[in-house]
Amino acid sequence: MTDKNIRLISTGGTIACKPTSRGLSPELTARDMLRVIGEDTDRVTATDLFSMDSSNIQPEEWIQISREIIRTANDKTTDGIVLTHGTDTMAYTASMLSFLLLGIKIPVVLTGAQFPIINEDSDGRRNLKDAICAARHLPGGVYICFGGSVILGCRAVKTHTLSHHAFESINYPYTATVENGEFSLLNTPSQIQVREKFSDSICPDVALIKLIPGTSPKLLDSVADCGIKGLVVESFGMGGVHSIRRDHNESLIGLMKKGVTVILTSQCLYETASLDVYEVSRTLHDAGAISAADMTTEAAVTKLMWVLGHTSDPQRIKSLFLTNLCGECK
Amino acid sequence: MTDKNIRLISTGGTIACKPTSRGLSPELTARDMLRVIGEDTDRVTATDLFSMDSSNIQPEEWIQISREIIRTANDKTTDGIVLTHGTDTMAYTASMLSFLLLGIKIPVVLTGAQFPIINEDSDGRRNLKDAICAARHLPGGVYICFGGSVILGCRAVKTHTLSHHAFESINYPYTATVENGEFSLLNTPSQIQVREKFSDSICPDVALIKLIPGTSPKLLDSVADCGIKGLVVESFGMGGVHSIRRDHNESLIGLMKKGVTVILTSQCLYETASLDVYEVSRTLHDAGAISAADMTTEAAVTKLMWVLGHTSDPQRIKSLFLTNLCGECK
Repeated sequence: MTDKNIRLISTGGTIACKPTSRGLSPELTARDMLRVIGEDTDRVTATDLFSMDSSNIQPEEWIQISREIIRTANDKTTDGIVLTHGTDTMAYTASMLSFLLLGIKIPVVLTGAQFPIINEDSDGRRNLKDAICAARHLPGGVYICFGGSVILGCRAVKTHTLSHHAFESINYPYTATVENGEFSLLNTPSQIQVREKFSDSICPDVALIKLIPGTSPKLLDSVADCGIKGLVVESFGMGGVHSIRRDHNESLIGLMKKGVTVILTSQCLYETASLDVYEVSRTLHDAGAISAADMTTEAAVTKLMWVLGHTSDPQRIKSLFLTNLCGECK
Repeated sequence: MTDKNIRLISTGGTIACKPTSRGLSPELTARDMLRVIGEDTDRVTATDLFSMDSSNIQPEEWIQISREIIRTANDKTTDGIVLTHGTDTMAYTASMLSFLLLGIKIPVVLTGAQFPIINEDSDGRRNLKDAICAARHLPGGVYICFGGSVILGCRAVKTHTLSHHAFESINYPYTATVENGEFSLLNTPSQIQVREKFSDSICPDVALIKLIPGTSPKLLDSVADCGIKGLVVESFGMGGVHSIRRDHNESLIGLMKKGVTVILTSQCLYETASLDVYEVSRTLHDAGAISAADMTTEAAVTKLMWVLGHTSDPQRIKSLFLTNLCGECK
């Protein structure tokens, strides 16, 4: 497998960080990082796309990354791509790339580190080596390789702020492991046939509100004034919201009447949202709110941006959102 | 231990649910539930406080529950309290009660179920028995007993929408287990001396914003117009926010200038937030934002409501918020 050509695209993040007077700042190039792990060969080429803390990565960067990947994949000389990226928004980027790169023929493997790769005991050394190895073995698609685990991109969530095992695969089996350079496939993600050709248009006018007991309906109302076209609500349990005193139903139905797409998901990390079990969720269900079912919040948010980038027709929004496009939902 | 007097206080929730034409609705009384598990003895007394889906439980109910518990504890004939409650907001209620009942001498054990106790295979039967058993053994304090695990109330998070093991203890050891009526203490929560006497005043004007890549600063700005006095931001990683294009720093500093207390926590479930590691978090740190460190979001939100219910002095807010009051932070 070492005869495969890998392209490393770097975007910054902790893995590329150096200490500065204002804290850590991403300054190493892709080539610098390859040199650190002794992978400075002809078989791994390097591109520096940009150098950012991932807390600043936004929809505009997603388009930039996606276009660079498509350009690279189209040159036909690259067998796999490794994308280094800060960990803080990596799961969002991996989810969005899963939609933007639907049907991609080569693997795109995101990785990064909890500690700068120049630190001798950094997890970045292992992660970068593992990701290159995984990119030589995986089928086409988008993945995160981190702490020895390979996770389908649209199922990854960052669960730990410090540990080397920072990401989990949510409601979906892990794809593979990499241990001491040994790649072991655990589960081949089901190949989904998406016949349609989609543009890379996305609508960034999406908001997320995670409810707490006492959330003011005014906060929900204000979403419309912010020019938001889609709202993901991290509700209680399977889809609960306040219906007395502070009436979230009224606010959310008001938003839907103004043309805002409302998605309900759970604030519980694992398992599924559902709007037809409890009385408190039925009203919203009947008014047209869509359940994100077993999707992660990261997938629900990025999928909604992607769907709203392709259509403004409510029926089409609903049917696209509920279609399993790349393994992100059942 | 069966000579101890337990009071069961019921507030509704799935455990008390019956099927209705509009979905499940909480209709069983505390006495009904005790009858189901054969615990209908003189040693367990029953109070029906209210009967609600926990998605509707709000700060006003917290005060009502807390006053009922204090009344019960003050009668000196009760050795422990079991509170049945819907699971969807149980971790928020347990966190808030931890602050409202600081220094309580008897255990208050919250429990509930994923399935109605009238169902033969419901987890509610085990949970209610376990909670009564735990209330006979635990030291004073607030806990959740669920799926055989006892968790310190201010460290509990609901992580699963369906499983019997619905709650996890976050960044803190489990307190105990209950297996087949056998109580095993794993970790005695450290006793914290809080000398001051606090009222049960809380300020419900607190909002939570969980950031996503692309979050509009307008959404953050709108918090002030909603009459919010405290904002908890679930940021990226250890405390990252956007500082370019959509500048969250500017919005959050603007809020702080208007007198809104800003708490930064992580959207990662495990481990800690920190504002002094990365360049992107330093600006907010320097401007007075407070890190929730290793607190759960549930604890951060309820603690902020509780702190703002006791003082409006910024220095006092900060020092109270950063003090470990009941085990909720390091």
